[in-house]
Amino acid sequence: MSSWTYVSAIREHVGQEVTLKGWLANRRSSGKLHFLQVRDGTGTIQCVMEKKIVGDEPFDAAGALPLESSLAVSGTVREDPRSPIGFELAVTAFSVVAPAGLDYPIQKKEAGTDFLMDHRHLWLRSRRQQAILAVRAEIIRAIRDHLDSQGFTLIDAPILTPAACEGTSTLFETDYFGDKAYLTQSGQLYMEAAAMAFGRVYCFGPTFRAEKSKTRRHLTEFWMVEPEMAFVDLDGDMAIIEDLLVAVVARVLDRRREELKVVERDVSKLEAVRKPFPRMRYDEAIEVLKRAGASVEWGADFGGDEETILSRQHDSPLLVHRYPADVKAFYMKRDPQDPRLALAVDVLAPEGYGEIVGGSQREDDLAVLEASLERHKLPREAFEWYLDLRRYGTVTHSGFGIGIERTVAWICGLPHIRETIPFPRLMSRLSP
Amino acid sequence: MSSWTYVSAIREHVGQEVTLKGWLANRRSSGKLHFLQVRDGTGTIQCVMEKKIVGDEPFDAAGALPLESSLAVSGTVREDPRSPIGFELAVTAFSVVAPAGLDYPIQKKEAGTDFLMDHRHLWLRSRRQQAILAVRAEIIRAIRDHLDSQGFTLIDAPILTPAACEGTSTLFETDYFGDKAYLTQSGQLYMEAAAMAFGRVYCFGPTFRAEKSKTRRHLTEFWMVEPEMAFVDLDGDMAIIEDLLVAVVARVLDRRREELKVVERDVSKLEAVRKPFPRMRYDEAIEVLKRAGASVEWGADFGGDEETILSRQHDSPLLVHRYPADVKAFYMKRDPQDPRLALAVDVLAPEGYGEIVGGSQREDDLAVLEASLERHKLPREAFEWYLDLRRYGTVTHSGFGIGIERTVAWICGLPHIRETIPFPRLMSRLSP
Repeated sequence: MSSWTYVSAIREHVGQEVTLKGWLANRRSSGKLHFLQVRDGTGTIQCVMEKKIVGDEPFDAAGALPLESSLAVSGTVREDPRSPIGFELAVTAFSVVAPAGLDYPIQKKEAGTDFLMDHRHLWLRSRRQQAILAVRAEIIRAIRDHLDSQGFTLIDAPILTPAACEGTSTLFETDYFGDKAYLTQSGQLYMEAAAMAFGRVYCFGPTFRAEKSKTRRHLTEFWMVEPEMAFVDLDGDMAIIEDLLVAVVARVLDRRREELKVVERDVSKLEAVRKPFPRMRYDEAIEVLKRAGASVEWGADFGGDEETILSRQHDSPLLVHRYPADVKAFYMKRDPQDPRLALAVDVLAPEGYGEIVGGSQREDDLAVLEASLERHKLPREAFEWYLDLRRYGTVTHSGFGIGIERTVAWICGLPHIRETIPFPRLMSRLSP
Repeated sequence: MSSWTYVSAIREHVGQEVTLKGWLANRRSSGKLHFLQVRDGTGTIQCVMEKKIVGDEPFDAAGALPLESSLAVSGTVREDPRSPIGFELAVTAFSVVAPAGLDYPIQKKEAGTDFLMDHRHLWLRSRRQQAILAVRAEIIRAIRDHLDSQGFTLIDAPILTPAACEGTSTLFETDYFGDKAYLTQSGQLYMEAAAMAFGRVYCFGPTFRAEKSKTRRHLTEFWMVEPEMAFVDLDGDMAIIEDLLVAVVARVLDRRREELKVVERDVSKLEAVRKPFPRMRYDEAIEVLKRAGASVEWGADFGGDEETILSRQHDSPLLVHRYPADVKAFYMKRDPQDPRLALAVDVLAPEGYGEIVGGSQREDDLAVLEASLERHKLPREAFEWYLDLRRYGTVTHSGFGIGIERTVAWICGLPHIRETIPFPRLMSRLSP
């Protein structure tokens, strides 16, 4: 047998004999020819099998083989301009590794999303799901590469935590050798400690919300990257967010055009993303919403509907900043120009995708933070270590969190977040 | 004020005036001179302050400033061969951002590990902890870079799972909207599904063990990378493990020499790590152990003591393969040459560090796997989706898991695993 290679490397073997190992994704036959679509995880290639070349028995075996069977196929690589990947394989030898059962659950015909999600372990093999998850992996890599290149240090935040950042009602709880522990909603407080040690840090891990909401924007388990920077204020925070999102979009456009085509993304929308992103104060946003007919009053946080209206008005992500402090978290710094406001920023992805980033400058004054804890009725003891950061060399600092799944939904143009993660966890779904 | 830069970029500014922002890590004074050690997270630099240049008031302020206060310091960068980083700053201006309390908990004098762990949020600022966590970040990046360069796709495994891979006794449990969910111990089964779709995949995330063990090798929450490859057997698995570990060691030696010096690592031990790694069958390992006087019998799994003996005999990690199937997991494939054995491999880091990797070829035959589930008394229904992978195009496949913290302990030469993760979770520690 000739040497094993992957479809992704096929262009290096034009005119050579190679062996591919994979699965039968599709087949079309015409007399003494089979056109086998062979998928090996790195791509799909058309393998042209002629009866007179491979012989009767292998030819008939290939013709009867159920889809999703595993196989090895050898042949000569040739260029073919009609092929989506530019190459096809002229088959010289063929062997079945293991025939699939004839009852492969996911057939060509339409299946409901629940059914597909029940078979997520197989649905991953579909071209569309592969494309989405390849874009996801690229986005994650782009974020890490960008932050690493900008002097950030990865500092993993703990998942099991003793106390809640923003109340316990939406937390998953577990017994921890007799104590109560909660699954993290955010690594931010830990990142603040780390920023005082490393200057610029980020964590990147799963976070959890036990929210009883069934919207197209919510998962109970989702991945978040949370950068935190010492000596950076809200303006600096917004600049860093902007640079990161520009880098992510550019990387996906550079390396994942094929996948964006598979999911039928209008890439002109992504190509339109440019620095500087529009910036808008919350006050202005309220006016814009009112003019658009929304029944929203100053002081309220935005819901999905308001985000949709605002984010449809711009080609690039919209940075909305300086929200009413009362709708934001206890750790956000007040605006010295107007203490009703928090130095917070939300980033709304365009085309109606809504919030993908939330960030703020953090309160760095010990007394103000203590008062804020009290006002929010948070247990002081649990935050003593956090207060230490204001006791010993406190500095201006800021950070933000990017929701990976929402970012994938935006970049791939997906209406629902459930396809953006390999094994989604929803209120009504914990398996497979 | 001159423009803000980081210590890590100081070499680009020789002869120029720059501003650094950071914390006072140490101070030595001599008459009209202060030698301030300023730490900004990217490094520490000596700043030489002369009274006659900065003036009386700033000079006295700097002399009285408590350690760990935050500050900004401007000055001219000059080369200095005596400096560990090769440069120092001749101070021209100085300002205090925020003075630290005088009671900074971590003083020069020795403090017990429990005390330091209680103050982990501050302990991170120490030179040694910074070095360890910088090496950790480098190892993580090296693993990702290597796998990505080898055609692996990152596929995140779920953290909340409905069933246990290997029994529920060491699992953290949580209520999931009325159902029971468990924190994952391994993403492997999910990676097997993903490998059938993507060929080569890996997950990289936190995993959990509610084990009541207080050893220097155990955390309740630890990070693991789990690659899984279709069409790869045990030999291929071992080759991929070997290449990955070689790449990781080379990267750390290339980029983190300074940090290894800080933790006083004997780097000659790391430089001695070379392909090919020694390979040893379990049968041989038993003989080696017996000759070394260990009271171990064929059929037993190795404990920490046995691993220590074996791993001290080689300069490179030792691959021990083909363990008795009875001490290994249900999903491992039996050795066709000797069905008492599983096609498993454990990798023992040298110098007595012990197991850092566990892997195997997976059982790919439906009937054999069904029988194995039954023998291990595992609930069949929970594994139906996993069995589907053997029904539809099953192939030879293998994978492994690398424990990040154990790898960091080995590479940094640390006796205890607790310093290898930013915020360790142990049986007796859930905070800060």
